[in-house]
Amino acid sequence: MDRAVIGVDLGGTNLRSALLTEGGDILDRHKQATGVVEGHEKVIRRLIENIRIHLRNAERRGLKVMAVGVGAPGVIHADSGVVVKSPNFPDWNNLPLKQELEGVLGIPVFIENDANAAALGEQWRGAGKNVQSMIFLTLGTGVGGGIILQGRIWHGADGMAGEIGHMTIVPDGRQCGCGNQGCLEMYASSRGIIMNYQEACASDRTNAGARDAATSEMIYQAAGSGEKHALHAVDEMGRFLGIGIANLINIFNPEMVVVGGGVKDAWSLFIDAVRREVGRRAFAYPAERTKIVPSVLGDDAGMVGAAAVAFSRVGVLS
Amino acid sequence: MDRAVIGVDLGGTNLRSALLTEGGDILDRHKQATGVVEGHEKVIRRLIENIRIHLRNAERRGLKVMAVGVGAPGVIHADSGVVVKSPNFPDWNNLPLKQELEGVLGIPVFIENDANAAALGEQWRGAGKNVQSMIFLTLGTGVGGGIILQGRIWHGADGMAGEIGHMTIVPDGRQCGCGNQGCLEMYASSRGIIMNYQEACASDRTNAGARDAATSEMIYQAAGSGEKHALHAVDEMGRFLGIGIANLINIFNPEMVVVGGGVKDAWSLFIDAVRREVGRRAFAYPAERTKIVPSVLGDDAGMVGAAAVAFSRVGVLS
Repeated sequence: MDRAVIGVDLGGTNLRSALLTEGGDILDRHKQATGVVEGHEKVIRRLIENIRIHLRNAERRGLKVMAVGVGAPGVIHADSGVVVKSPNFPDWNNLPLKQELEGVLGIPVFIENDANAAALGEQWRGAGKNVQSMIFLTLGTGVGGGIILQGRIWHGADGMAGEIGHMTIVPDGRQCGCGNQGCLEMYASSRGIIMNYQEACASDRTNAGARDAATSEMIYQAAGSGEKHALHAVDEMGRFLGIGIANLINIFNPEMVVVGGGVKDAWSLFIDAVRREVGRRAFAYPAERTKIVPSVLGDDAGMVGAAAVAFSRVGVLS
Repeated sequence: MDRAVIGVDLGGTNLRSALLTEGGDILDRHKQATGVVEGHEKVIRRLIENIRIHLRNAERRGLKVMAVGVGAPGVIHADSGVVVKSPNFPDWNNLPLKQELEGVLGIPVFIENDANAAALGEQWRGAGKNVQSMIFLTLGTGVGGGIILQGRIWHGADGMAGEIGHMTIVPDGRQCGCGNQGCLEMYASSRGIIMNYQEACASDRTNAGARDAATSEMIYQAAGSGEKHALHAVDEMGRFLGIGIANLINIFNPEMVVVGGGVKDAWSLFIDAVRREVGRRAFAYPAERTKIVPSVLGDDAGMVGAAAVAFSRVGVLS
């Protein structure tokens, strides 16, 4: 009987899940709104329903489902499978997600932080195949991070490592929701790009209406057509991202840096600024050898990585 | 026959060496000027003479010397024992130090970067006993770093990891010798403190003579007696060091941060500023659990750590 797992990406917006083979092929997939506002009980019920659909599907295909992997945002205690705290799920405090799901489903469940899961997804089936040391950055509303060293996630002493988005880049910079000032994510996330744009527009007071309604997608589009404030906003984003990546290269001397999140289409707009900063700030040899590449799996990275977690925790993947 | 090793700290200024037991006790020690300007052949000859003194001493004591460990500044290829490049030894380029020493001495020799060696020394016999994840910072002319994860040095893909002193802290800050601007070491090294002090003095143009002749020791002393510019210089040093440490806590979630180098006597002058920045910048839980402590071994850390490298490479220490 061939072996399979179910990978789940429990996002603040969408709940994605899939049935995957040992080779990482996606056999079926499901996506729906997470519905965070309805509370954790409804979200978990929805999650269980989706997993059961995959389980029935696996049965029909004659596959044995070994485990379920779940990538969830926030502070996760990976060993116990407890969601300690999650900014996207305000009512999830010390929620024993692994235990709750295992009690209902009767198969092993493993929980991992979502950015860590996405990093593992890229390593297993995406940009980082055969790479042993890799830093993964995901640019969304915030900036998430996953650190892979010697082929494994570095979780830190308490499972809280990898908060790369909260590296201070500008000591007296923009106020971040975490309490710090000048965090990388205040310059290189979608919110950061909007602030970069608003600051650029404010300098000449043009077009206040467009300025205030701008989304990161609109700014990327405007930059693509050569609008100067949008170009500046995206260049600033690349500059600060480049400072952060240069720091990571000097600290880790990794083989690869993978940038994911909703920025794939904008890659060509900011990557030159990233490379310019890395070139002038990081040590030459590690900077030249570190591949800086976009995510290959895109929105699938978290789900595929959660599957990788499941396979590795039951001993199928090393 | 009891086992021993010889640990060597090959510094830009001093050459320190010692004979150590398995328990890390120092049986005899030697210190002399390195004499870098005389060229690498003379330095290596001096090194060999000192090691031979320790070997004779071991023989007299009835000890078997298993290996020699050498901590050297710069880029070291730890596996091959080659000094790839060393800023303090301009004529050391791809020098096969391990091979040269083994050829003469006839016992195994292992080479490690000096900051990494000092980190291992603190972990073995100093502040970090029983600690598995520890970041070591050494504040001297520059700021060196050693990263211990899961009990071992993280070398990076090419042995160049741990360049913590070259983390960008101020994007458009002071020009560093590495080519970057705003590196941590331009604010928190002894050179950095002098620049902090000179900037503070420049603001009111007093006492230009004292300002220009100041050393870091003089500034610490003046700060200890309450002189306002010196106090400001040391507070700035603590502030920037705190930003760097907060970043490291958010990235690594380590058990401990150890600060070494020539700052032990000044600890009480800057540690409050460090803790203030960590408190406002790092995530609360990892920040509260991370012990930030001074080096216990001081100037012995590199030599003791080089001995730890030697013991562990011959399989005596795990």
